[in-house]
Amino acid sequence: MFKLEPKNKKALLKAALGEIDADLAVKNCRLVNVFTGEIYPVVVYVKEGFIAHVEREALEGPYRAKEVFDGEGRYLIPGFVDSHMHIESSMMVPRNFAKVIVPHGTTTIVHDPHELGNVYGVEGVRYMHDSAEGLPMRQLVDIPSCVPAVPGCENAGAEFFADEIRELAKLERVVGLAEVMDFYGVMHGDDRMMDIIAAAEECGLYLQGHAPGVSGRALSAYLCGGPYTCHETRGSAEAMEKLRMGMYVDSRESSITKNVEAIWEGVKGSRYFDTLTLCTDDRESDDLLHEGHMNAVVRKAISCGMDPVDAIKSATINTAREIGIAHLGAIAPGYTADMVLTKNIRTLWADVVFFGGKIVARDGKLTEPVEDITYELETRNSMNLAPVSEEDFVIEAPVQNGTVKVNVMKYQSLDSSVTDLSTAELTVKDGRLILGEGMAFVAVLNRYGKGTKALGIVENFGLKEGAIASTVSHDSHNLTIVYFDPSDAAVAANELIAQGGGMTAVAGGSVLNTLRLEVGGLMTKLEAEALTVEAAKMKEIERGMGITVPVNPLLRIVSLALPVVPNVKMSDLGIVNVADQTMIPLFA
Amino acid sequence: MFKLEPKNKKALLKAALGEIDADLAVKNCRLVNVFTGEIYPVVVYVKEGFIAHVEREALEGPYRAKEVFDGEGRYLIPGFVDSHMHIESSMMVPRNFAKVIVPHGTTTIVHDPHELGNVYGVEGVRYMHDSAEGLPMRQLVDIPSCVPAVPGCENAGAEFFADEIRELAKLERVVGLAEVMDFYGVMHGDDRMMDIIAAAEECGLYLQGHAPGVSGRALSAYLCGGPYTCHETRGSAEAMEKLRMGMYVDSRESSITKNVEAIWEGVKGSRYFDTLTLCTDDRESDDLLHEGHMNAVVRKAISCGMDPVDAIKSATINTAREIGIAHLGAIAPGYTADMVLTKNIRTLWADVVFFGGKIVARDGKLTEPVEDITYELETRNSMNLAPVSEEDFVIEAPVQNGTVKVNVMKYQSLDSSVTDLSTAELTVKDGRLILGEGMAFVAVLNRYGKGTKALGIVENFGLKEGAIASTVSHDSHNLTIVYFDPSDAAVAANELIAQGGGMTAVAGGSVLNTLRLEVGGLMTKLEAEALTVEAAKMKEIERGMGITVPVNPLLRIVSLALPVVPNVKMSDLGIVNVADQTMIPLFA
Repeated sequence: MFKLEPKNKKALLKAALGEIDADLAVKNCRLVNVFTGEIYPVVVYVKEGFIAHVEREALEGPYRAKEVFDGEGRYLIPGFVDSHMHIESSMMVPRNFAKVIVPHGTTTIVHDPHELGNVYGVEGVRYMHDSAEGLPMRQLVDIPSCVPAVPGCENAGAEFFADEIRELAKLERVVGLAEVMDFYGVMHGDDRMMDIIAAAEECGLYLQGHAPGVSGRALSAYLCGGPYTCHETRGSAEAMEKLRMGMYVDSRESSITKNVEAIWEGVKGSRYFDTLTLCTDDRESDDLLHEGHMNAVVRKAISCGMDPVDAIKSATINTAREIGIAHLGAIAPGYTADMVLTKNIRTLWADVVFFGGKIVARDGKLTEPVEDITYELETRNSMNLAPVSEEDFVIEAPVQNGTVKVNVMKYQSLDSSVTDLSTAELTVKDGRLILGEGMAFVAVLNRYGKGTKALGIVENFGLKEGAIASTVSHDSHNLTIVYFDPSDAAVAANELIAQGGGMTAVAGGSVLNTLRLEVGGLMTKLEAEALTVEAAKMKEIERGMGITVPVNPLLRIVSLALPVVPNVKMSDLGIVNVADQTMIPLFA
Repeated sequence: MFKLEPKNKKALLKAALGEIDADLAVKNCRLVNVFTGEIYPVVVYVKEGFIAHVEREALEGPYRAKEVFDGEGRYLIPGFVDSHMHIESSMMVPRNFAKVIVPHGTTTIVHDPHELGNVYGVEGVRYMHDSAEGLPMRQLVDIPSCVPAVPGCENAGAEFFADEIRELAKLERVVGLAEVMDFYGVMHGDDRMMDIIAAAEECGLYLQGHAPGVSGRALSAYLCGGPYTCHETRGSAEAMEKLRMGMYVDSRESSITKNVEAIWEGVKGSRYFDTLTLCTDDRESDDLLHEGHMNAVVRKAISCGMDPVDAIKSATINTAREIGIAHLGAIAPGYTADMVLTKNIRTLWADVVFFGGKIVARDGKLTEPVEDITYELETRNSMNLAPVSEEDFVIEAPVQNGTVKVNVMKYQSLDSSVTDLSTAELTVKDGRLILGEGMAFVAVLNRYGKGTKALGIVENFGLKEGAIASTVSHDSHNLTIVYFDPSDAAVAANELIAQGGGMTAVAGGSVLNTLRLEVGGLMTKLEAEALTVEAAKMKEIERGMGITVPVNPLLRIVSLALPVVPNVKMSDLGIVNVADQTMIPLFA
């Protein structure tokens, strides 16, 4: 089990007593105390990376410390702790991700390497864990609980059972079982989920939940099943119901899904917010660079009316308690010396960031070098499928000419990922289906050597011409292509196979642009600035091809094959009826 | 590790979903929600001893339950959880103790069998643990951390090191390491305490502290050392300092030491009370019968100005979080169904008490039979010393006649247990010391077969005639006697040796009265009512002999040999200088 403790406890004790010099004293700052809600001037002594002593008196020194840092009257708050997120969503590898969020004052994340877990299994989780070694922040890991998301309806790169959980629980920075998405399985006591939960409990892991829209008796059953947190709360009433039931509500503000306001509206009448935390879930590089990370979420909560100290508490000690890690999330004796100096506790731009008592960022810039390491997994091509040809993307109609009824996956709107099953009567000419108005072809190709592939038809997706393809395709991350002309689809597929994954756009048989995501087909080794430029180029091209969703056109395709979003989705096995997890034939 | 979980989780899930009948539905009651602070009408469904579902709507039924209990509009609160206490202080054995507190709504205690641990070692802790089997309440155990309290200055019946902690941690209901009293040892990183703390952490135990009056850098060092709770807070400023430092403040209201008011005065300005809990520490049978147990402490906190729901929260979920036990301390899905119905959330008399979903007390009476079991340890005589004679209590003066300087343990007042070292010039006549005004002799005899014995002189103790003796004598519980005439002392000692321990009063060579405490010399098998009568008789007699302390004269002698109370104390090895843990000779 992960534990925060100094290497040399006796030295910490001596520094606390003032018998030896501390390594650092931070003077002239105003402590935001998350235990009492007070703000008052302090001197904070640090030894061995931990807070040795917080002095409210004798502010003038002398200071029993090797180094004295002048806080210049700013607020001193605990480093932020993100209660739920996925590094892969940033499309950056863990080391580069750290570089961009540390300057915002996030010193601990609890992340779920679910995406790479679906691609590379245990090895992928291990890489996400191991590659965080020596970073100027703490990347705690929750073990993906649902790999694949919907067993039997899709083929991912791995399958996790209780044994995988037990094996991964041995990793040093593992703290929990990640978002238990199969809430249906939990509430009905399915053996696989019960085994996985029992294994996690046996290993001392906390149980992170995932219960979007689940309420009433279903929510009671889910809580009785074990998981006790949720970052999928969208509605105000839903938020208050979860709080009442003792569930931790991890209020999310991702790049796409912004729930903080609605949740605050729901829970603001509560007397206690012990179980309210804040999280980012999925944030892209652009937002990380310009808006921030956890500081942006806390800022948003405050702008919605939350008291600044309550909001800071929800992003620090509340999360530490939720995940069961002692000595984290506060500035008090024995706690890890992760601290942020900020001029303004409403806007929360981080002036100085301390991690383990060491300055790691100042004025928005990382000051602690992050060693450049290349891991073997990063150099592999994860695309385990052979080059394809135009013929692979032609749907064989059951008649040569005439009409045929097909089951179509129809988006409810151009900016919702919710789809309905729709039946259309399509013309067949020389054995080929003629698409109706607003339709496109879709292909999902297994990229883990299974050889499985499904073709279908999508409506209201938005694409107007050419083809787009992505290997970021939740949660199995198979190669997903939306197209009109099979030859464009083949060019797109072969481009991503050659590049080792990513996103591409093709028109007239030529690649327009590719965003290369060579690490597992999900992440790039580019840093945030370069990635933001690349992503912007790709977005621009996709917008030009008709993907006009308000926030991020790149995310339109990535949930096409996600069989936990209602009501029908495509996988490498075909059309999935999400509600009952059955397969639907293409021809009605 | 102790864990709360249903035997048949799948049945609990089914009842939550309403697929099968719950075992019980409690309707027509107002839930005190410790997560939100709200009070609202509910129906609570219980299955397998756990809360399956809490329904806010559809209050009229039908109820999917085998049995429906009408709450008659009363408040439904979680069963109380006592964050720190010693059963031995009640002088009752665990089973009889349960009988008297369950009707007050305490369904869980976290107790420290420190006293019997000093007498019988591992075996004593085991007995305290095992004899709670099958009770209509949960007696969780913290393993005594400091046996004896001051190694080297006293001989107890046992010595605990890391191995004893590891062994006892295997017991089913063990949750923590009990009040780490040797705060000096912790803050200075003494090997024995560091080893014990490391062993406890390795076993997943939480670390209960004990830091009376400790503040500033000393408190920082103590917290860096590990323990993070304290029930020894007396002052208002001390309470707020501890809260600020992230320490759990277990606000105590024992029969003798009443800290709730001062603590509340200190902390009432805090924005948060997450780390404020309530506890009883030591309560005697009289109080338990007539004033209550945790309900009395909560009542007191409310009378001091604490919000009733905050106070209830401090006596339930806050404590559950402090001790790290999930599914305890709230009425919510998945939580143990320990609940109390009360008409008034300010006075908190328990009308109906549910433990694990079963009614165990109504209208102040236990309704669930407690099986009468006799344990082998209860039938033993713990007095391992031979009968004594008058000569054993005569102090041999270094001169036959004349004067001699002696070191006297002088109480600061008749109702304080704090003493100072005082030097007196006493007359010696025929080799015998003549006591000065207000003085008495004191003897501490090891009762664990060590053969050690110390004689001394006490001043301002209060006794005016005869002799009193006790085997309740913290923390080593050696046979302690205060007397004028050695022959009375011998009678008193022999009486307690014969009775197997207890308290006795002797005058003119005859026993006036004995309160027999045959279980380890600390507890009786009498139930609360009978014990209260016996204790009242004993108190009356001691008062008549001059022990006029306001609260309980029986407790005057019990701290005489407690070498952690300042400034000098007697042990079976002689006079102890508490501050530096050295021995002081009798003759100055």
